[in-house]
Amino acid sequence: MAKKYIVTFMPVNRSTVVEEGTTILEAARKADVFIKNLCGGQGVCGQCRVQISSGRVEVDEKTKAFFSKEELEKGYVLACQAKVYDNIEVIIPPETRLEEARILTGEEISARIEINPIVKKIFLEMPEPTSEDNISDIERVERELRKKTGWHGYDISLECLRNMPKVLRESNFKATVSIGKHRTGYKILNIEPKDTTKIHYGIAVDIGTTTIVAQLVEMNTGRIMGVVGSPNPQASYGEDVISRIIYACDKDGLGELHSLVVKSINQLIEELISEKGISKNDIIALVAAGNTTMSHLFLGLMPCSIRLDPYVPVADIYPQIHAKDIGIEINPEAVIEVLPSVASYVGGDIVAGVLACGISERPQITCLIDIGTNGEIVIGNNEWLVCCSASAGPAFEGGGTRCGMRATKGAINELQISEGKVIYKTIGKAKPRGLCGSGLIDCIYELVKNKIIRPDGKFNRDLKDERFSIVEDIPQYMLVPAEESETKEPIVITETDIDNLMKSKGAVFAAMKSLVDYIGISFDQIEKLYVAGGFGNYLNIEKAIGIGLLPDIPRDRIEFVGNSSLTGARLCLLSEKALEKAFIISRAMTNIELSVYPPFMDEFVAALFLPHTNRDLFPSVKY
Amino acid sequence: MAKKYIVTFMPVNRSTVVEEGTTILEAARKADVFIKNLCGGQGVCGQCRVQISSGRVEVDEKTKAFFSKEELEKGYVLACQAKVYDNIEVIIPPETRLEEARILTGEEISARIEINPIVKKIFLEMPEPTSEDNISDIERVERELRKKTGWHGYDISLECLRNMPKVLRESNFKATVSIGKHRTGYKILNIEPKDTTKIHYGIAVDIGTTTIVAQLVEMNTGRIMGVVGSPNPQASYGEDVISRIIYACDKDGLGELHSLVVKSINQLIEELISEKGISKNDIIALVAAGNTTMSHLFLGLMPCSIRLDPYVPVADIYPQIHAKDIGIEINPEAVIEVLPSVASYVGGDIVAGVLACGISERPQITCLIDIGTNGEIVIGNNEWLVCCSASAGPAFEGGGTRCGMRATKGAINELQISEGKVIYKTIGKAKPRGLCGSGLIDCIYELVKNKIIRPDGKFNRDLKDERFSIVEDIPQYMLVPAEESETKEPIVITETDIDNLMKSKGAVFAAMKSLVDYIGISFDQIEKLYVAGGFGNYLNIEKAIGIGLLPDIPRDRIEFVGNSSLTGARLCLLSEKALEKAFIISRAMTNIELSVYPPFMDEFVAALFLPHTNRDLFPSVKY
Repeated sequence: MAKKYIVTFMPVNRSTVVEEGTTILEAARKADVFIKNLCGGQGVCGQCRVQISSGRVEVDEKTKAFFSKEELEKGYVLACQAKVYDNIEVIIPPETRLEEARILTGEEISARIEINPIVKKIFLEMPEPTSEDNISDIERVERELRKKTGWHGYDISLECLRNMPKVLRESNFKATVSIGKHRTGYKILNIEPKDTTKIHYGIAVDIGTTTIVAQLVEMNTGRIMGVVGSPNPQASYGEDVISRIIYACDKDGLGELHSLVVKSINQLIEELISEKGISKNDIIALVAAGNTTMSHLFLGLMPCSIRLDPYVPVADIYPQIHAKDIGIEINPEAVIEVLPSVASYVGGDIVAGVLACGISERPQITCLIDIGTNGEIVIGNNEWLVCCSASAGPAFEGGGTRCGMRATKGAINELQISEGKVIYKTIGKAKPRGLCGSGLIDCIYELVKNKIIRPDGKFNRDLKDERFSIVEDIPQYMLVPAEESETKEPIVITETDIDNLMKSKGAVFAAMKSLVDYIGISFDQIEKLYVAGGFGNYLNIEKAIGIGLLPDIPRDRIEFVGNSSLTGARLCLLSEKALEKAFIISRAMTNIELSVYPPFMDEFVAALFLPHTNRDLFPSVKY
Repeated sequence: MAKKYIVTFMPVNRSTVVEEGTTILEAARKADVFIKNLCGGQGVCGQCRVQISSGRVEVDEKTKAFFSKEELEKGYVLACQAKVYDNIEVIIPPETRLEEARILTGEEISARIEINPIVKKIFLEMPEPTSEDNISDIERVERELRKKTGWHGYDISLECLRNMPKVLRESNFKATVSIGKHRTGYKILNIEPKDTTKIHYGIAVDIGTTTIVAQLVEMNTGRIMGVVGSPNPQASYGEDVISRIIYACDKDGLGELHSLVVKSINQLIEELISEKGISKNDIIALVAAGNTTMSHLFLGLMPCSIRLDPYVPVADIYPQIHAKDIGIEINPEAVIEVLPSVASYVGGDIVAGVLACGISERPQITCLIDIGTNGEIVIGNNEWLVCCSASAGPAFEGGGTRCGMRATKGAINELQISEGKVIYKTIGKAKPRGLCGSGLIDCIYELVKNKIIRPDGKFNRDLKDERFSIVEDIPQYMLVPAEESETKEPIVITETDIDNLMKSKGAVFAAMKSLVDYIGISFDQIEKLYVAGGFGNYLNIEKAIGIGLLPDIPRDRIEFVGNSSLTGARLCLLSEKALEKAFIISRAMTNIELSVYPPFMDEFVAALFLPHTNRDLFPSVKY
């Protein structure tokens, strides 16, 4: 029998007993102690930093790169990579603690929701047929299912029925069925010999206009097996949804855009499973969240009317389909759910976000800002939900700027300028390759704070700084010299980049201000503000307020929650109830169409300033 | 405006007013007068004979072939082909009257059931989207559907959703949707511009082991647009289900047998629509009835365990599928229902028969004998249903005998032997090509009655009859000389043929006798006996009893109902309620497995005699 050890978590002083070799993260879950962890225990996000104050743990050498020499000496480790071989005491530093209200972005999801996935695997041990009991194979399977689940009246896929006699007889009538939930009942999707209930995977996908992110999820436990992302290849037909709609409708490009997103998701799935030795056939469900246009293109629905007054989508609630219907390369009978949209410009991604943040479950007025290529904003509580969207452009996802990039390895995600020096951190501590959204926000803030640019976003032309130059009439500022960068090209920010970022942040803030005014509340009345978006795992909230992207409210009310669309999609994969909630949320949300809301344009113009033309809105910002 | 005339039906003395050009059959339906009609108003079955006693009608010249000179002089016409151009009085002769209890085999079905087809077409006139009403296309369609039907929560096919925006905008939001009923709700299958509710077709198919028959049905009225049949091409892999199962399972032939039946049904559909200018896309539902093995092969399900003790089929209730799933060439989204089986050797065909005969709706003890390659027998009433089956071989469908043929044009379906002369009638009054089931029954009866063969089925070798000869050791009797036949070959019946027919009739009678004994009733207690089978439109009941195929009960209790499997399939096409009833019937039937019921074999041996070894069972048969 494996040895057992006591793990005590401080400062909460909660203990649990675990077998040797258990990770500290797993021990924490067992002890009901929540530790930040965005990558799902992969040892890549560096969020689950804890300090071992006594006892011995084993750590993966590679993870030492996440810590400074001093930290390593103090006993810092990544909780997900450190294994227990002793009675130990763990100190959870403040930055690693997961507040109760915090969004469920990591493995801890399994500790918080009741896992009841939309496709379930059930092992059936059936009596073999006899003369006295010679009901048909399907009846035998359904009889055993009824005993186990109490449900009646299953549907079944023809393919599964075709496989059934062989599987049952090869396995002496001991087989595992996969049961999918659809709108009006349950369907038997797949049958396999023996007990394969442990081999049970699903995919959550966030189909962003600029970036597609996919997660491989173990369906019994909710464990995230891996997360990968790639640029949306449709971007070569236009950065924003409007140009893609035009390509689909005026250039007969729907088929191509549809194929591109399907192909891209297939590649991500391949990437997710290739290292883990998981078969595509063992993935039996996929939940996708995206804005309305992305959802249409994913399903091959004509998005034309989305961009034409009165902005009508083909569908807001999408039919459940099967993987084979659109060529997603997982189990052909796998269930695919696309999360419901609210309106042409408020999609399933924001519905997923509202679900992930639990906005509709609490009486407190809560706001969610999801900053992607479109900025979407929801304000509400358990009684009402109002939302709007504004085109933010791809700047915060690393598009539309000279040295912008996605939040992946080598992206600068933190930056400070002090006395002409630029201090920065990169994701994965790699050589810098560019700036991701959070790095760009820091950069603008630092530029204006250091008076390198003026509040209108233009460079101070009189600047005496060797990092400043004007190249082909465009002023620019060098953040990283060529010799320091991965590409051996300097990393710079140009006045054009800043202009794009000003428009992006202006659109988001103006949308939020318009929505608050429309509802008739003040920013102060927002009790919780969640910020979601493709910023990687980091956002400096102080600096985001400093540039006027977020409203100037008490900092402890604001929380960065990462990719809430993906989290919501995963929730729906893991819980029938969550999926039902998503439908209810989509029906409950009132959409304010900003394009026909006259004050919006004035708010937008007023927001094209750092932090804002009306300084009274940002009393705490000093520069 | 068209002129109107009064049509009065005698002897019932019921009148109705119709527009000029209406057929007498249509007028009869309007007047709630039921006229026999097996071909659905095609003018080919010759059943709807009526006499015009006053007034002028127009008739198709061709239909005069159905009548003698005297009959024509008396004013006989086919009701389905005679058009009203005057006030007329019609006498319905006794043989043409459709008794109330008679099975619904023809057009009159639409007058008897409430038509509520399993796929409905509904025309929707929707308001065009505005800023105030900019719900999605699918929501707009569903909103209008809810208003029209009261149903909620539609499913929709992805393909239909993909077509929806174009169709709606091309038709100014006036479109017709096809709505299919499935187990747990309704699904939108198809959308078309404008009002196409009048163009609405379905297919009923009887998949027999020897013969496949398909009917094209107009779904709004239940009108039969055409009936066609063809030999089941699987027959080249074996005449009975057992040899087909062996081919499927031991020779890896499932795919081939599946393709053959699908291809054959596609050809029949092509034949049905080619003349009528109907598009395949306008056929939106298909209901198939067949024995359990045929149903398995149609869906591509492995039938292996059907023939192995304890005789377990893969499925008895089959999932609803769509045409595209198995390559049936009608609307790809069309609903396909396969009627449920009871057991491995009691299939959906007999369930359909019970439904068509209304056995489960009356307190009287009723029996249905369906004589195909398998003979299936059901006895029951509204409280219980017991059934069994026995392999009858293909003899009654024209297989397994030298000059046997299906009941189509040129088949001898009535035959009499008198003083060395053979008097016969053929289907369509064509030159004889062979004998169909009813002709063979008549033939055996006449041979034994005229002492040409003995009660053991062997020819009387001393026979002095120029029609008798022994060719290659096999005694045979010439029914039609070469010069009279279509093929210029003589039509004969051999001792081997008679032997096969004896086995067939013996198996059917033995099964029925076993079932009656098992239940513990006598033949006398059967208040109604329906005989179904591929005998064309004619069966001489007296002679069927005379050879010991049917029990010797009062003749007025026996009724020949034609292809009751096809009729049941059509009922399910036309009525959601009928389809539900089919499921209930399939669950309510108790199957007696004759192969493990010891008395059956003794009964079979005893029945290999004309009419039977035990003459007491046939007191009224005199020869």
